[in-house]
Amino acid sequence: TEDGGDGATVILQGHVDVVPPGDLEQWEGDPFVPRVTGDTVHGRGACDMKAGLTAHLAALAAIRASGVRLRGRVAVHFVVGEEDGGLGAFGTLRRGHTGDACVIAEPTAGTLVTANAGALTFRLDVPGRSAHASSRDEGVSAVDAYLPVHRALARLEAERNTDPDPLMAEYPIPYALSVGTLRSGDWASSVPDLLVAEGRLGVRLDEDPAVARAALERCVAEACAADPWLRAHPVTVTWPGGRFASGRLPAGDPLRDTVADAHAAANAGVRVRERGAPYGSDLRLYTAAGIPTLQYGPGDIRHGHSVRERVTLPEIVEVTRTLVLTVLRTVNTK
Amino acid sequence: TEDGGDGATVILQGHVDVVPPGDLEQWEGDPFVPRVTGDTVHGRGACDMKAGLTAHLAALAAIRASGVRLRGRVAVHFVVGEEDGGLGAFGTLRRGHTGDACVIAEPTAGTLVTANAGALTFRLDVPGRSAHASSRDEGVSAVDAYLPVHRALARLEAERNTDPDPLMAEYPIPYALSVGTLRSGDWASSVPDLLVAEGRLGVRLDEDPAVARAALERCVAEACAADPWLRAHPVTVTWPGGRFASGRLPAGDPLRDTVADAHAAANAGVRVRERGAPYGSDLRLYTAAGIPTLQYGPGDIRHGHSVRERVTLPEIVEVTRTLVLTVLRTVNTK
Repeated sequence: TEDGGDGATVILQGHVDVVPPGDLEQWEGDPFVPRVTGDTVHGRGACDMKAGLTAHLAALAAIRASGVRLRGRVAVHFVVGEEDGGLGAFGTLRRGHTGDACVIAEPTAGTLVTANAGALTFRLDVPGRSAHASSRDEGVSAVDAYLPVHRALARLEAERNTDPDPLMAEYPIPYALSVGTLRSGDWASSVPDLLVAEGRLGVRLDEDPAVARAALERCVAEACAADPWLRAHPVTVTWPGGRFASGRLPAGDPLRDTVADAHAAANAGVRVRERGAPYGSDLRLYTAAGIPTLQYGPGDIRHGHSVRERVTLPEIVEVTRTLVLTVLRTVNTK
Repeated sequence: TEDGGDGATVILQGHVDVVPPGDLEQWEGDPFVPRVTGDTVHGRGACDMKAGLTAHLAALAAIRASGVRLRGRVAVHFVVGEEDGGLGAFGTLRRGHTGDACVIAEPTAGTLVTANAGALTFRLDVPGRSAHASSRDEGVSAVDAYLPVHRALARLEAERNTDPDPLMAEYPIPYALSVGTLRSGDWASSVPDLLVAEGRLGVRLDEDPAVARAALERCVAEACAADPWLRAHPVTVTWPGGRFASGRLPAGDPLRDTVADAHAAANAGVRVRERGAPYGSDLRLYTAAGIPTLQYGPGDIRHGHSVRERVTLPEIVEVTRTLVLTVLRTVNTK
């Protein structure tokens, strides 16, 4: 918290957790040792979202160094657990930390993100029947049993991506349904008796997550009903891990223009484009708590969760400039 | 070794290793605590091949208790590592332990197995390209990349099972090609960048394992060539773990009739049926070392490597009787 006065409180929010690195062979060097090449930082978390945290801290340092006195307050919420559902943000809000506006510095690549799709983590347990691989016809491979379910999930994704909200129109697949992990079997020459798949189901803007869950459960149930083995041994669907609803900055909220104008002032008059984001974030927890919130931060989310994760230093500087102006213009009003 | 004399040496062979239990939820009770229900023993290794080892030991105990003096010798080879390629048998033979005939008590369900198909353990490393699942179109799922390879393997299996050797005619799939383990991804909402599959490739009777390996490598290479992603990022095929050639008891060897006659004498005149086995075993190491070898033991291999693994006590007794007569008739000749 900076100063204290009769102005508004603005929250600078970001998460410190990152996802696992995946196949280490595909990285150039240790993913957890940042590598700077030219004006670019490479490493797991570089854009999602250490760069955003850095911009928040740099903005605060600049404001403090300037000697300006703030009428309002700046709250910094650096939280854990965003990647797995937002428990850190949930706990922070639950403990009573609040404000009049919030900027999350998730990577937005020079745009303003005023809405998020949601995402739900699903788990499928697909039964097989074990057997010696040499008489595999005596068993049922859980891998083979899973294949029609995999195909059904692809069809469900296509159905759920017809006619998306205009804020999502630029994305080839606004509400992606993706299988992220598969585990099956424990011996090369046994027929695998279980396959466990975990994945993420995109939740549409303004869609009740319960409706999205029901759609996937119905899809899996229909795939099971159409398959002789799965009809008798149905796939179990559970919902562990992250559960992100969708969220939106309320229509007409002044925060949109405050950040957009700050961006223009800090970036030679460039008007920032508004869009939604296809991924879940802590935004929906803040908007649900009545705090107008948007995302604006350095880096491109397309590099997040990938081996090419990177961010450029000029982007961090640009965002920092915008954040400084955003804070000053926000905390001096109420 | 029993006695020592001027007769032949017969080897009673078996392996003590077992495969992992798979999904524990599918077992009734601890797979490693034998459970006797009526005349049946349940548990991992019950038929593959603790029952055979028991029959060997019981036969020796019966011969010793009878007080009979043997002209020849009985060697017992209880080995490790059969399930993963036969290193125990290889080492035993390499150390100079030999004999004039060998009976492996692998489960043969009341038949004589005089030939084995082989089996090779393959591993496929299928590359993907990681991405945040919310923009999965930026990545390539290693799971999706694997699917055409999985289909190609199914076609290869079909091709390799046309016109099998008469000893294999009774099996729906004499030379099974089965994927036993799959591992892909480490986070539900990342696009998986690697899929690793391990499986077993059946080797045809009398087929050079190098020819079988080449067939699978060609199949995978063709599947890669037909796919835009895999053409640029081909699947890597390696051959870790078990490598079983096929093997046969030499045509006309007297061991076949010795065991068959002993079976008839011990089982009310029932003639035992001869067949090949679709799985690899230590047989091929013994026959390759010039020791006439066949398999004859209690239990049904269809229960091996499965949660239903079991064997009946009367089968063990029947096999023990046959083994006693086989030993007596073998070691008293040379």
